[in-house]
Amino acid sequence: MGKLKHLCLDVDGVMTDGTFLYSENGKAYKRFGPDDSEALNVLKRFVSVDFVSADFRGLEISRARIERDMGFPLHLVTASERLAWISGRFPLDSVVYLGDSFTDAQVLQSVGLGIAPANASPFAKAASDYVTQSPGGGGAVAEACFYLAKIMAFNPPEFSFSTVGY
Amino acid sequence: MGKLKHLCLDVDGVMTDGTFLYSENGKAYKRFGPDDSEALNVLKRFVSVDFVSADFRGLEISRARIERDMGFPLHLVTASERLAWISGRFPLDSVVYLGDSFTDAQVLQSVGLGIAPANASPFAKAASDYVTQSPGGGGAVAEACFYLAKIMAFNPPEFSFSTVGY
Amino acid sequence: MGKLKHLCLDVDGVMTDGTFLYSENGKAYKRFGPDDSEALNVLKRFVSVDFVSADFRGLEISRARIERDMGFPLHLVTASERLAWISGRFPLDSVVYLGDSFTDAQVLQSVGLGIAPANASPFAKAASDYVTQSPGGGGAVAEACFYLAKIMAFNPPEFSFSTVGY
Amino acid sequence: MGKLKHLCLDVDGVMTDGTFLYSENGKAYKRFGPDDSEALNVLKRFVSVDFVSADFRGLEISRARIERDMGFPLHLVTASERLAWISGRFPLDSVVYLGDSFTDAQVLQSVGLGIAPANASPFAKAASDYVTQSPGGGGAVAEACFYLAKIMAFNPPEFSFSTVGY
Repeated sequence: MGKLKHLCLDVDGVMTDGTFLYSENGKAYKRFGPDDSEALNVLKRFVSVDFVSADFRGLEISRARIERDMGFPLHLVTASERLAWISGRFPLDSVVYLGDSFTDAQVLQSVGLGIAPANASPFAKAASDYVTQSPGGGGAVAEACFYLAKIMAFNPPEFSFSTVGY
Repeated sequence: MGKLKHLCLDVDGVMTDGTFLYSENGKAYKRFGPDDSEALNVLKRFVSVDFVSADFRGLEISRARIERDMGFPLHLVTASERLAWISGRFPLDSVVYLGDSFTDAQVLQSVGLGIAPANASPFAKAASDYVTQSPGGGGAVAEACFYLAKIMAFNPPEFSFSTVGY
Repeated sequence: MGKLKHLCLDVDGVMTDGTFLYSENGKAYKRFGPDDSEALNVLKRFVSVDFVSADFRGLEISRARIERDMGFPLHLVTASERLAWISGRFPLDSVVYLGDSFTDAQVLQSVGLGIAPANASPFAKAASDYVTQSPGGGGAVAEACFYLAKIMAFNPPEFSFSTVGY
Repeated sequence: MGKLKHLCLDVDGVMTDGTFLYSENGKAYKRFGPDDSEALNVLKRFVSVDFVSADFRGLEISRARIERDMGFPLHLVTASERLAWISGRFPLDSVVYLGDSFTDAQVLQSVGLGIAPANASPFAKAASDYVTQSPGGGGAVAEACFYLAKIMAFNPPEFSFSTVGY
């Protein structure tokens, strides 16, 4: 497990609950949740953090949260290009990938560690090494960070109070 | 099962979770979910796809998602006219219908294959041949697409990674 | 049971899921759900229908849905005044009341038939004669209408397909 | 238990369900729920009530609900400063604290009575003396008020109808 160095996360269904609100003018809002931003701010001292999204219509919404408010890079990468995009940047066995869709299944089973949220597609869960107890937009990313810190023995002081086993 | 050629879907409660947000100015937002659009894009190579809705006040919201962003035809058809509307276009036994309301029960039991989401009215579920494990706006339509591809042996490459049985 | 003639319904938590969205400018949206409007349109042929709400800040939102779009009267009545307001209009034993809050408990136990949604306060449920399986904003009012039609033997043709027992 | 005199509450995940809606312009809405405001209006006759939040980007949304509409003071206090902030104002064993995040764990285990909502982080729950059955934004604060009134024997008449044990 010592080789995991890069964290790649899908946005919709992982940082959000996967839903989006439409008005007459189109896609208007996405729903993010608690703890994920705080936990990633701790974990980024130990691994690189990149977000990928295929949702071009909702990209500016994702940018507002991921890039502007949280400060992490967000890349527009379609589902079919995603595995090639990741393998062109990082050795696949050094990558932790979080995804929720049936279109993420191939990536999840190809990387070093694949993690799916509780509410992910059964296809994504079956292709993953670990499934969080929390759903996307409900603490799944924070839980993945706690899990990574534990199996990699990162021991950040911010997580030190934890005596809860996942 | 070889005769199923036409997929007709209700919008509210099937593509959405059935809820809608009201402001002082009236109906403002509907809540759509993940995977449904991607799965329908695969299935449309094998069956025709039409959406029907009786929600005239929220029709422009539905049009923004279904017609403009997803590219499928959306027809305004009331609940009481729906069975006649479908049978006037397609042989009933060639139709797969997805609906969630008690007003959909008659259609669901009259078509070739009736499918209701997990969160549908008990009346809709009782009248259906198949009930998805996923709720509307939470993957119900994607799951119905996987189910149809399986029972019809469509074998699209995009679903080929699936080793999960529903 | 032949004496039930008047249906009084709370709005928030009964017609909605009880939540409301706040922006910097205050209360902005409430979340309504499927089937309730259609079922009430059937039941109004058999009983009178009145809505009551104590939410003065969100009253215009409730008016947009209940009065303007659904066509039912909505009365601003505080929790402490509600029992007196109802008993001043109708014989209490002729009233069916739907409420979800701990502040509704006294009314629920005083009327002819008290009904609480699945997600109501335990106080409201304990004071009710019947608790729906569906939550507010998720079919609770429609389910209450089916229940009333059944115990009162109203037999509307729109509910005739129902072979599901609640 | 006679020494509990001060109620301090986190906002996000306690008064809300922890989620927030983003548009292209950033954080736009938070989701509050039923009964909490009414129950706090009763409990404020027996204990002091203060809200704390670390969410500076969503602070004006929280102010609109907590300060302007509910009338309680809201203080911007980061997670790392929170324990010192509370202990500088009140004897720690006189404080009841409600929090949901892993960043609240230290405060929850240091105060006189720590309470976490049902949907809180496992870290927050493990550090708490009491976990409500209701989630944040779904009655958790109201339930905490009923619990406090019971264990402190406040006996407010507004809660007197209650024969339900939590």
